[in-house]
Amino acid sequence: MPSMPPIISFVARPDHGKTTVLEKLIPELTGRGLRVGTIKHHIHRFEMDKPGKDTWRHKQAGAHTVALSSPAGLGLIRDVEADMEVEELVARYFFDLDLVLTEGYKHKSFPKIEVFRKQGADTSPLPRRDGSWAAFVTDTDPGADLPCFGLDDTAALADFIIDRFLRPAAGNRAVLMVDDKVIPMNSFVESFLSQAVAGMISSLKGCRDPKLITISIRNEEKKS
Amino acid sequence: MPSMPPIISFVARPDHGKTTVLEKLIPELTGRGLRVGTIKHHIHRFEMDKPGKDTWRHKQAGAHTVALSSPAGLGLIRDVEADMEVEELVARYFFDLDLVLTEGYKHKSFPKIEVFRKQGADTSPLPRRDGSWAAFVTDTDPGADLPCFGLDDTAALADFIIDRFLRPAAGNRAVLMVDDKVIPMNSFVESFLSQAVAGMISSLKGCRDPKLITISIRNEEKKS
Repeated sequence: MPSMPPIISFVARPDHGKTTVLEKLIPELTGRGLRVGTIKHHIHRFEMDKPGKDTWRHKQAGAHTVALSSPAGLGLIRDVEADMEVEELVARYFFDLDLVLTEGYKHKSFPKIEVFRKQGADTSPLPRRDGSWAAFVTDTDPGADLPCFGLDDTAALADFIIDRFLRPAAGNRAVLMVDDKVIPMNSFVESFLSQAVAGMISSLKGCRDPKLITISIRNEEKKS
Repeated sequence: MPSMPPIISFVARPDHGKTTVLEKLIPELTGRGLRVGTIKHHIHRFEMDKPGKDTWRHKQAGAHTVALSSPAGLGLIRDVEADMEVEELVARYFFDLDLVLTEGYKHKSFPKIEVFRKQGADTSPLPRRDGSWAAFVTDTDPGADLPCFGLDDTAALADFIIDRFLRPAAGNRAVLMVDDKVIPMNSFVESFLSQAVAGMISSLKGCRDPKLITISIRNEEKKS
């Protein structure tokens, strides 16, 4: 998936402070001009929005998707048929950003940074299931042959993420989704598709020098 | 915009009960198998999510977009550069639904249903700025030559909306967005674009019989 924003998962045993690390890291990254998105994975009952609000009442009444739109921001709550894949989430909602940080998803193969504190009964980091661990943020020695950053070593952590994971910007990038799947494309196909589409629409009014093109095609079932 | 889900705006003077009408109407429509979305327009400070939650902390820290993803639903909060146009909102986030109901947007030209109650100092409906008023939901006589539905006349209101605004499903429909604008296409261009794209991707793995195709192309500025 060369054309998606890089996805980096922050993982930890419970209460080791992933969110606190992200709270420091996000402004460090945005301060360097990056547009950062975050995804929190939640396996329990869903709670966003506030009981009694109009949008909450619409959702309770059975709306599939509700949006609250204002000049200050957009809020959206949608039904899903199953837990969304991170790739689909990023392709649909984070495609125009530079970097996506997640909390959770420790069973996926995205590059991981583990937050590990010396505390309580937890004397060792998470079992590493694969080679996706990239670094630790820690106040101790996690006993791993990987870069370690102190809990307040935020600038160095941002440098590491940028050097290791951010690709230099270059030409057109395209992402293709079919139904709920991101379709892998090699760079030839990606380049062919993005140039063909850009060419096709270039003579339409309002399509000069586009920064972001989105095409959605819905195939209605024909009811006879 | 023949290919977008129909958009119907519920408008009213303050406290005439738009949300209460929608709370009854939404289950009536979903009960008939329609996928219904709602948009609430809000001109004041934005409040979705709950202070202290991890996603709220990410947003406070400066994340451009935060998502809470669970098997039960998706919540998303995004920065916007300006108040989003309804067309863009619908094209990006409601394209796969059958119908979108909004609260607010009384200055836009979408078909409107006004909720008007006999109460307080309000002795007349909103001034009608244009011909976009389609009906009233009311407990009185709004003095207008338009269909009127009682406050509990929900089944008849749903019939009216379906008969008047829902188009029969037919073949491919496509929406093209460039940057933050929906680009109008006549049906020839729409059909050409959707068939060309469907044809181009048809030989890729995972692209057989797609119901929903989404392509996003981002043109990175080349930094030399």
